[in-house]
Amino acid sequence: LDYQHVQVPFEITLWIMLASLAKIGFHLYNKLPSVVPESCLLIFVGLIMGGIIYGLNDRSPPVMDTDIFFLYLLPPIVLDAGYFMPSRPFFENMGTILLYAVVGTVWNVFGIGFSLYGICQVKAFRLQDVSLLHNLLFGSLIAAVDPVAVLAVFEEIHVNEKLHILVFGESLLNDAVTVVLYKLFRSFCEMPAIKSVDVFAGIGKFFVVGLGGVLLGLSFGFTAAFTTRFTKDIRVIEPLFVFLYSYLSYLTAEMFHLSGIVAIIACAMGMKRYVEANISLKSHTTVKYFMKMWSSVSDTLIFIFLGVSTIGENHEWNWPYICFTVIFCLVWRALGVLVLTFFVNRFHVNTITGKDQFIIAYGGLRGAICFSLVFLLPDFHRKKLFIAATTVVILFTVFIQGMTIRPLVDLLAVKRKRESAPTVGEQIHIRFLDHLLAGIEDISGHWGQYYWKDKLEYFNSKYLQKILLREYDQPKSSIVLLYEKLERKHAIELAEAGQLGHAPSHPALLNDRTVIMDKKLEDDALNSNVLDNIQEILARNLYRTRRTGPAYSRHTLPGETEHVEHAKEILILRHKSL
Amino acid sequence: LDYQHVQVPFEITLWIMLASLAKIGFHLYNKLPSVVPESCLLIFVGLIMGGIIYGLNDRSPPVMDTDIFFLYLLPPIVLDAGYFMPSRPFFENMGTILLYAVVGTVWNVFGIGFSLYGICQVKAFRLQDVSLLHNLLFGSLIAAVDPVAVLAVFEEIHVNEKLHILVFGESLLNDAVTVVLYKLFRSFCEMPAIKSVDVFAGIGKFFVVGLGGVLLGLSFGFTAAFTTRFTKDIRVIEPLFVFLYSYLSYLTAEMFHLSGIVAIIACAMGMKRYVEANISLKSHTTVKYFMKMWSSVSDTLIFIFLGVSTIGENHEWNWPYICFTVIFCLVWRALGVLVLTFFVNRFHVNTITGKDQFIIAYGGLRGAICFSLVFLLPDFHRKKLFIAATTVVILFTVFIQGMTIRPLVDLLAVKRKRESAPTVGEQIHIRFLDHLLAGIEDISGHWGQYYWKDKLEYFNSKYLQKILLREYDQPKSSIVLLYEKLERKHAIELAEAGQLGHAPSHPALLNDRTVIMDKKLEDDALNSNVLDNIQEILARNLYRTRRTGPAYSRHTLPGETEHVEHAKEILILRHKSL
Repeated sequence: LDYQHVQVPFEITLWIMLASLAKIGFHLYNKLPSVVPESCLLIFVGLIMGGIIYGLNDRSPPVMDTDIFFLYLLPPIVLDAGYFMPSRPFFENMGTILLYAVVGTVWNVFGIGFSLYGICQVKAFRLQDVSLLHNLLFGSLIAAVDPVAVLAVFEEIHVNEKLHILVFGESLLNDAVTVVLYKLFRSFCEMPAIKSVDVFAGIGKFFVVGLGGVLLGLSFGFTAAFTTRFTKDIRVIEPLFVFLYSYLSYLTAEMFHLSGIVAIIACAMGMKRYVEANISLKSHTTVKYFMKMWSSVSDTLIFIFLGVSTIGENHEWNWPYICFTVIFCLVWRALGVLVLTFFVNRFHVNTITGKDQFIIAYGGLRGAICFSLVFLLPDFHRKKLFIAATTVVILFTVFIQGMTIRPLVDLLAVKRKRESAPTVGEQIHIRFLDHLLAGIEDISGHWGQYYWKDKLEYFNSKYLQKILLREYDQPKSSIVLLYEKLERKHAIELAEAGQLGHAPSHPALLNDRTVIMDKKLEDDALNSNVLDNIQEILARNLYRTRRTGPAYSRHTLPGETEHVEHAKEILILRHKSL
Repeated sequence: LDYQHVQVPFEITLWIMLASLAKIGFHLYNKLPSVVPESCLLIFVGLIMGGIIYGLNDRSPPVMDTDIFFLYLLPPIVLDAGYFMPSRPFFENMGTILLYAVVGTVWNVFGIGFSLYGICQVKAFRLQDVSLLHNLLFGSLIAAVDPVAVLAVFEEIHVNEKLHILVFGESLLNDAVTVVLYKLFRSFCEMPAIKSVDVFAGIGKFFVVGLGGVLLGLSFGFTAAFTTRFTKDIRVIEPLFVFLYSYLSYLTAEMFHLSGIVAIIACAMGMKRYVEANISLKSHTTVKYFMKMWSSVSDTLIFIFLGVSTIGENHEWNWPYICFTVIFCLVWRALGVLVLTFFVNRFHVNTITGKDQFIIAYGGLRGAICFSLVFLLPDFHRKKLFIAATTVVILFTVFIQGMTIRPLVDLLAVKRKRESAPTVGEQIHIRFLDHLLAGIEDISGHWGQYYWKDKLEYFNSKYLQKILLREYDQPKSSIVLLYEKLERKHAIELAEAGQLGHAPSHPALLNDRTVIMDKKLEDDALNSNVLDNIQEILARNLYRTRRTGPAYSRHTLPGETEHVEHAKEILILRHKSL
């Protein structure tokens, strides 16, 4: 028996197998996952596993390695999140998300840090040796909402799209803030004295970390798209590039101390559109499927490891500190959401309701990122207390909040996600309004979101598409493509119903078909692929309609360029006739 | 900059990226891969990379780690080979393949080992310190044909199916022999004295290693199939099980010193049929696509690393030894093929022609397995000579033989692979003959391949399918499914051609369609999926036809059981009428 030789891959494979089998196990009994979120079940499995290991070996089971977590388990989940990010609600609520992610997180960090410092001053609690800086450091790691935990819970409760994107977007983008504050306080802890210049450098650093991540990610994303231009002859390695480039963007960002999460999201969102157009349909199925599979496995492993790592002798128990940490986490988040939403609502027509605010505050789950960060802390005599407090906060949020959020959503009758896809009529109206608003913003000189979206779309079709897409030809009449697709679908259905044999002759059939198609167009039964296609076609065509008229500019008179064109045309015509 | 933190995944990603980009590069110029096999180009890229590393660092570039090769790079390739193994020609030629793989490899090992020992006795060559045992050890690693190299070259030259499976099957199955002989001689080298009992133990061990691998692989394969019965609710992790179980089978086999390659092939071939039936179509696309992708990347990396590892100061140059190694490798293989084929041809009607024999002998490429094994040798003073000889043999076979085999195949007019898939008519005849021959073997009491195949099929439908498949219901009339499929295909084509609008009325259409369908059925344009389906349907139905008649058995009289059934039926009917 030569176990040592195969140990590493063997154990990794066994862990993944355990995770997958656990997942199958939950789903065999349909009742369980509908009551308890899967994340709780997985942590529970992990706790049992940890207990067994602890019982057999009589020493603490291995703690989840932070390197393994940050380098191998986290990227697939974030890539999946970024690649399948619903871009429209994300960009529409960008401002609000950034406010929550940046100001909200800073608010939480300082709120929790200072108030815990206050608790430490109470003599009866015997915590006076925990300095303010240590409390702030702890605050910086416990304040951030965790994307993995949020995704796991919110995917199951189906709240409305806006609410989902607000919580989830915040959890993703706060990574930049967490990275900066955590590293800042950690270096402050090791410095003898702190100068005010260091504080300002920290604030400056935030922009570098965040924007640097975005730029890095976008550049990798565009390179990936560019690479897939040339894979026509070897389709089989196409899916690889999506994974390689996004992983490289994450690793490079980590290497330069930028935000890896932000980088990989920017990369995925930047490449998606072009990669999809370049690669074959089967490659794309593979990419989507494997991304989902990978993130699902990572996610499962993280929760199981979280459970396993909880068992052991890493904890120092101090009731007041731990209880107050949980309370402050809840209170400061609730306050932060209230205050920030107040400002957000003043500037938006589509306000965030009180119920939504409650769910946003309540959905602030903590997870494996805090857990990994607390183990990364430099050794000092109260580290075990911090580990205990972090573990309790995570278990509290995942178990108590995660399990009660679904009944609460039901109880409050929070607006749910629309189960049916929007009809074509709605889609046309949304698109139409987009362009109308872009026009209004153009004329009024207000550089709002529609204005920028329009400019971006222009830049995309003028330059990016030509560089990044293999076959860049705007189809002559894309509505015809849709028609053909529907026609084909209809034909299949006819064939399946066995009606093709005695199909009616031309006019009757056409009539019949029009009725079916009309019904179909308004119908929700149209599968989402077709709808995506419609959406795309509408986007392209309505955009073009807008572009065919002369562009309005505040610096030229209307019709100015047109006149010149007209004059030229007349000249040419005359020249020809001569 | 924090490079150390991300070093391992970063460098792995970069290597994979380099490999993939190199592949894209070759395919951008279509002429290059049609003249030079891709494996040669990749080794060439590796040589250049190695040269650059050597030039910059002034020391030998890193050698391909044998653990990385055997644990991470080899399994995906073998899994791919096993999963997509054409099972019919493989089992039909099983005897010949085993003869080549077992007897042929032993013949080569001892032939090369003894004759190199003869060369070592020549005083002028100054090789007298290389013992017979060392020569045999070297023979055991250099004798085995490499599946990776064979696959890379033979996939491009498209020889006929039988020839391909003979060379490729041999290269896969000789692993068991190589493992046993290599380990045997290595342990002999370290033993003070060799007893005859050790030699017999070695022979016995071969059966353990080979058959143990098969049994282990099959048990993992069936477990995988059984697991996929329960994945209906979480389709997203289905593809994972295919990879996990086959990898586990490989690792477990390696752990118990069995043949990992044989295990993973048995696992893949055993699970394929059931897994395919259990998992969803998209999961299956993902499995197929990812397997191909993974093996393609592994393959690329192996050849690049082979090139990189060649550069450096690991070599001891001795002209006679190296030249004679190359010559003996060629001569003994040629002799072995001639002698073995002589015996094979005496027992087969469908003989192996002289041209085929030449290509079998000439296609005996060596590759990365020898290379990894030679580095695994225990340290002794002539190890560098062995490394040099192995490198030369590999480069000679891959470059000279790999590049000339295509022109030779053209020159000799070796029978090529049929480009077109067999027609339905042919398929029906093949199936029909199978069952006819099974029946003849049954009656004549000859336990030939058809007899066993039939028994296996019976066992499969009686027990295995019921345990391993989720929905085990033999479809009532599967020919109807095919009809529907063709109907649907036809409808799409009609719609695409715009003919659906003015489709003719019933009788005319039907006529028209029948003609088209007939043409289609005989046509090669039918895509392979449909053909696979047809094949399956035929297999199932013709089999059932054969089963509906009473099974012939030499121990019961014909009609014996039937009579009992009849009697029962009459009794029941009477009972009812009363």
